[in-house]
Amino acid sequence: MVQKHYVTYNQIHKLCQHSATRILQDFRPNLMIAIGGGGYVPARILRSFLKQPGTPNIPMQGIGLSLYEDLGRDDPEEAPGTKVTRTQWLDLSSLEMTNLIGKNILIVDEVDDTRTTLEYAVRELEKDVKEVTQKLGRTGEKTNFYIFVLHNKDKPKKGRLPDDMIQEGRYLAAETVPDWWICYPWEATDIDEHDRLVAEAPTSTNGSA
Amino acid sequence: MVQKHYVTYNQIHKLCQHSATRILQDFRPNLMIAIGGGGYVPARILRSFLKQPGTPNIPMQGIGLSLYEDLGRDDPEEAPGTKVTRTQWLDLSSLEMTNLIGKNILIVDEVDDTRTTLEYAVRELEKDVKEVTQKLGRTGEKTNFYIFVLHNKDKPKKGRLPDDMIQEGRYLAAETVPDWWICYPWEATDIDEHDRLVAEAPTSTNGSA
Repeated sequence: MVQKHYVTYNQIHKLCQHSATRILQDFRPNLMIAIGGGGYVPARILRSFLKQPGTPNIPMQGIGLSLYEDLGRDDPEEAPGTKVTRTQWLDLSSLEMTNLIGKNILIVDEVDDTRTTLEYAVRELEKDVKEVTQKLGRTGEKTNFYIFVLHNKDKPKKGRLPDDMIQEGRYLAAETVPDWWICYPWEATDIDEHDRLVAEAPTSTNGSA
Repeated sequence: MVQKHYVTYNQIHKLCQHSATRILQDFRPNLMIAIGGGGYVPARILRSFLKQPGTPNIPMQGIGLSLYEDLGRDDPEEAPGTKVTRTQWLDLSSLEMTNLIGKNILIVDEVDDTRTTLEYAVRELEKDVKEVTQKLGRTGEKTNFYIFVLHNKDKPKKGRLPDDMIQEGRYLAAETVPDWWICYPWEATDIDEHDRLVAEAPTSTNGSA
């Protein structure tokens, strides 16, 4: 049986707060991309901690990515959770793609489980930026993608991130955990009971950041 | 001095949970549009409670709207907070606009303060849908927009929502409060202190839902 790992809102708030220090120091993002719906909450919290006095908030765009299993499709030929479909992509009319060239772009999600969604997001975003970069002859400017997730599950991954992203330390998980079933608070039907389960859990599996 | 009203994550979770009953019964949304960044957290929580067994999650798109003041511009001619600018709009390549015709669309934000942002969102979304509806000759199908906010501030509003939206009860605020300064948890630099302030506040101003 898979062990359940309950996390409170305040623990997630602190995970974002703690990671913001590293993100500000090493990543210095110019844009945040929240993978919806899971990335929405950490991205919103993180934005507060990335705000610098006297400067505007870091712009944030939401993208929607679903594994096929989330769509409730009944295709027996399709292994669940292996194919990604877009439900929303970057808005290039508001956010000119050329503005992304040479910038630091932080992709935010809640969990790195099989890595399938993250692989898709990075690959497609890099492809889009590369196209525009070459078209405009601005190949001298490097656009860097970074990843922030609340939890990375320590398990074999189906998806693969670019080697240079890993080597250059452009991947940050606030916590690395075993292959647990992570129970996020925004999925709790009884939030008081949810918090009680966290409080009663051994600290080794449910310590706050 | 403006009174500060602190709200915990769990209170917000319960506000969404409580409102979901009404939303499911009366609004029956086919799509959620989260106004970023404030609407991201309530939209994500709400989605859990709108999920019906055996059916997929309600699709969600993020849009980005900023009042000029949020952008840190220094135009002395421009009164702060009166003009809205888009930082992200609907992704019409993933979400065919024609799919919106005749549907129930729920717009989600954290607070209805001056109503400027909400007026803009409803007006522009209605305009976009109307254009496509007329173009396709599907004027017999009515698309309904609904609004859900965590807090409505009881004050004179600069923005105005369509009369039929109000009359038909397509507007829902989980709580209506005086013109307080609402301190949302995702803006707290010390979440423990934030929660302590809620616990110590008189229950009349900080009761949970």
